[in-house]
Parts: sequence; structure tokens; C-alpha cells
Amino acid sequence: MAPAAPEQNVDLLSASQYFFVYNAFSFTLACMAATTLFLWFARSQVAPAYRTALTISGLVTAIAAYHYWRIFESWDSAYDVIDGTVTVTGLAFNDAYRYVDWLLTVPLLLIELVLVMKLSRSETVSKSWKLGIAAALMIILGYPGEISDTIQERAIWGALSTIPFLYIVWELFKGLGESIERQPVEVRKLIKDARLVTFASWGFYPIVYMAPFVGAGGGSVETALQVGYTIADIIAKCGVGILIYVIAARKSEFEPGWGAKAGTAPAT
Amino acid sequence: MAPAAPEQNVDLLSASQYFFVYNAFSFTLACMAATTLFLWFARSQVAPAYRTALTISGLVTAIAAYHYWRIFESWDSAYDVIDGTVTVTGLAFNDAYRYVDWLLTVPLLLIELVLVMKLSRSETVSKSWKLGIAAALMIILGYPGEISDTIQERAIWGALSTIPFLYIVWELFKGLGESIERQPVEVRKLIKDARLVTFASWGFYPIVYMAPFVGAGGGSVETALQVGYTIADIIAKCGVGILIYVIAARKSEFEPGWGAKAGTAPAT
Repeated sequence: MAPAAPEQNVDLLSASQYFFVYNAFSFTLACMAATTLFLWFARSQVAPAYRTALTISGLVTAIAAYHYWRIFESWDSAYDVIDGTVTVTGLAFNDAYRYVDWLLTVPLLLIELVLVMKLSRSETVSKSWKLGIAAALMIILGYPGEISDTIQERAIWGALSTIPFLYIVWELFKGLGESIERQPVEVRKLIKDARLVTFASWGFYPIVYMAPFVGAGGGSVETALQVGYTIADIIAKCGVGILIYVIAARKSEFEPGWGAKAGTAPAT
Repeated sequence: MAPAAPEQNVDLLSASQYFFVYNAFSFTLACMAATTLFLWFARSQVAPAYRTALTISGLVTAIAAYHYWRIFESWDSAYDVIDGTVTVTGLAFNDAYRYVDWLLTVPLLLIELVLVMKLSRSETVSKSWKLGIAAALMIILGYPGEISDTIQERAIWGALSTIPFLYIVWELFKGLGESIERQPVEVRKLIKDARLVTFASWGFYPIVYMAPFVGAGGGSVETALQVGYTIADIIAKCGVGILIYVIAARKSEFEPGWGAKAGTAPAT
């Protein structure tokens, strides 16, 4: 999946596989854009303290919508389908848009989780910095492995990238875990769900990263990887975003003056 | 980096260098656009006195997003990458978009710093004019050197451009320095940070300007320069913009009636 290597799949990608990925990209673009608008409209329906969490959740899906549009265009220009046969145009399919996307969205995903908890200012700032930097490091260290030509380099960078990943897991379940126990009992389970979905949806990415280790290649593997990425992205970004909204709406009911004023209890 | 001279790097820019710059431009476009939306959404979360500072901070990143879109398109059309080999198309890569961008954004960056301090009206107007005009002069005087063919002309215009630059540094650290000491103690350090980040991020630009003096050229230098520009721009525009938001949010808490009304403490 280095930018210059789509040729390997040229005679292996069937027209139906090509269109399946094509439609999956378009579907994901629509999902991301729709979630963005939903989250931004919802800002006025939650107490002011939770609006930044919704702004950022919507930014995550907006940034992903932009990148899915770029990925869609790149996929479109990398292949021609004439009379049911797929040929490569010579232009590379730029899968690196995914890394560029993650570099922005993965830190923001962790920050939206911190923000919706409404911790003390110092705790919010320190947890956002720690988790944000660890997330950025995880992505940056993964990238050289992704574009390398050798399995050895891929393994080394993959291992280095695992260090910040383990730190994030520890911070989410240990450090943030203690703060979650101090959340109102009505939203405690929802926040744990949001944490779990964030964490579980990441499980797909290392599987894709390690695909070359088992010599996986060809049209059906490429199709499975691309569609798998889109499903993981929809769960991690739209799914978690909606959860953040539900948490913000429930917690707004406890804000002095807000629940009554807005006649809240706003859904889901 | 004059508009008509990308050919010099033609056989030196590798496909992975080309794509690294390509992805860096796309990343920066996404950063700028996302920061713009964040800052404009945040307007309603700060006291009215600080909204113009956020409007202008968002305009800076919006103008930069537009120019990065143009730069991305120009880079895309200047090179072809077919089957992993980079060739020039004959269309020039127009690096001058950067000067056009700076001519608008550098004065505005200084004005957003003045605005968030909420000085007296006469002080705000006079400092904005002085800093804004000096910043525009600095950019205008640098440009003829950037497009000149001789090292001598580049040195002369570079030296002329340094005069308004030194005036800005003096004004930021001496003139504005006294006003900073009159800011609420809670935000004094943050305002100094914003000033320092603004100033420090500018340090990269003269290095690029002087690259031809040491005969620097070739694909890896071009890649380093372009990626360096994007990092400097992200720090100067997105980084300072977020700092302006944090300062505005904290200072809003001291505005009569606002902190209580909005139940503020809006994060970070």
C-alpha cells in the first residue's frame, strides 16, 4: 500500500471488487459528512460546558469526510474500468491519506473523550496533552513501516508504534478509569462504552498493518482491507461521536439551570 | 523556488519525496480548515469583547486553507508520477502563493494578538496599524529578493525586509510588553507564550530565504523546505489561534456577568 505499488493488484482486482470499494468510500464520505452536521447542530442543545466536545467530535468526522473525498478521487483516478475489465492508469492510489487523517483525528478522538468528562481544568489540559501526543507519536512511528519495502523495517516501526499505543491503553483504563468512577452514575456506563468502542475499533488497524507478513495480496485482500478500514473508521468516528453527543445531552440535565431551561431530556 | 524553476529538481525528486510533500500539503489544508471551524464555533463560547479576536484568528487559518489548496493543486499539476517515476509537466510550481498568503495573514496574526489583550480603544487602533503595516512591509520587501535571479539582489531585499522585522520584534517585546504586564495574572503567561510562538515560528522563514546562499538544491532540500514551511505555518497559525482561544476563554470568566451566565470553563 505504498503510494507507488498498486500495480501488484492490477490483474487481480475484478470490476465488482473495484466498485464495491468505490461505493464503500462514497458511503463513508456520506456517513462522515452527515455525522458532522448532526453533531454541530446538536451543539445548541447541550449545556455550554459540553459544546467544545461536540465541536471537536464534529471536526473529527469533518476531517475524515475530507480525506474520504480525497481517497475516493485517488481510487477513481488509479483505475479504469472499460467493458468490465479493470486496468491501472499508472497513477498511484494514495493510501497515505489515511495516515494524514489519523495524525489529526486520533488525538482529537481522545481529546473529545476527555472533554465530555468535564474534569478540572488542569486535569483536562494534562490528559489532553498526554493522550494527544501519544496518539500522534503512534501514527508517526507507524508510517515509515507502512511505506517501507521490507518486512523487517515494517516490523521495527510497528513495534516502536506499539509503545505509545500501550501507553494510551494504560492511560485510558487506569488514569482515566479513576476519573470515570467520579462521573455521574447515569453516564458512567456510556463513557465506558465510548472508551471501549474507541479502543476496540483500533483493533482492526494492526491487522491490516500486518497483512504483508502473511504474504496477503491480490484483489480480494485489497478489497477486504479497504472495506475493513472504512468500517473501522465509521465505528471509531461516527459511532463514538454519537456516543459523545448522548453523554453530553444526559450530563446537560445536571447543569444548574440548563435541564429545566431547555426542557431537556433530548433523546436517545 | 521562483515560479519558473522547478526543472532544476526534476531528476532529483523521488516519488516518495514527491508524495511526502503532497501529503504534507493536504494535511496542512485539513489542519487550517479544521482550526478555522473550531475558532468560529468558539465565538459563541467567549464574551463578546473577545469575539473579534476569534473571528480574525479563524480568518488567518481560512486564508491559509485557501492558499494551501492552491499550493496543493499547483504541486499536483507541476509533476507527473507514472509508475513510480517523477517527471515535470512543464507547468511551474507556484510557490509565490506563500507570499500572497503572508501579505494577508501576518498582519492579521499580529492584530489577533493585540485584540485578545483588550487594550483601550486608542491603543488597540494604534498598535494594530503599526504592527500591521510593518508586517505588510516586511513581506513586500522580501518578495523581490525571492524572485530575483542573483544572490546580490536577494541579499539587498532581504536586508531591507529585516528593518520592519526588527521594528515588529521591538514593538512586541517592548511596546506590547508593558501592556502585557497589565493583563490579568492568570493569562499573562499565556499571552507571552502566544507572542513567543508567533515570533519563534517566524525563525524558519529566513532560513529558507537564505538557502540559495549556501547553494542548497535538489530533491531532499526542496522536500525539507516545503515540509518545513508547512510545519512553521501550522505552528504560527493553528497553534497561535488555539492559544488565542484559550486566552479569550479564560479572560471571559472575568467579564461581568459572562462567566456565570455561560457556566463557562469551556475546556483546555
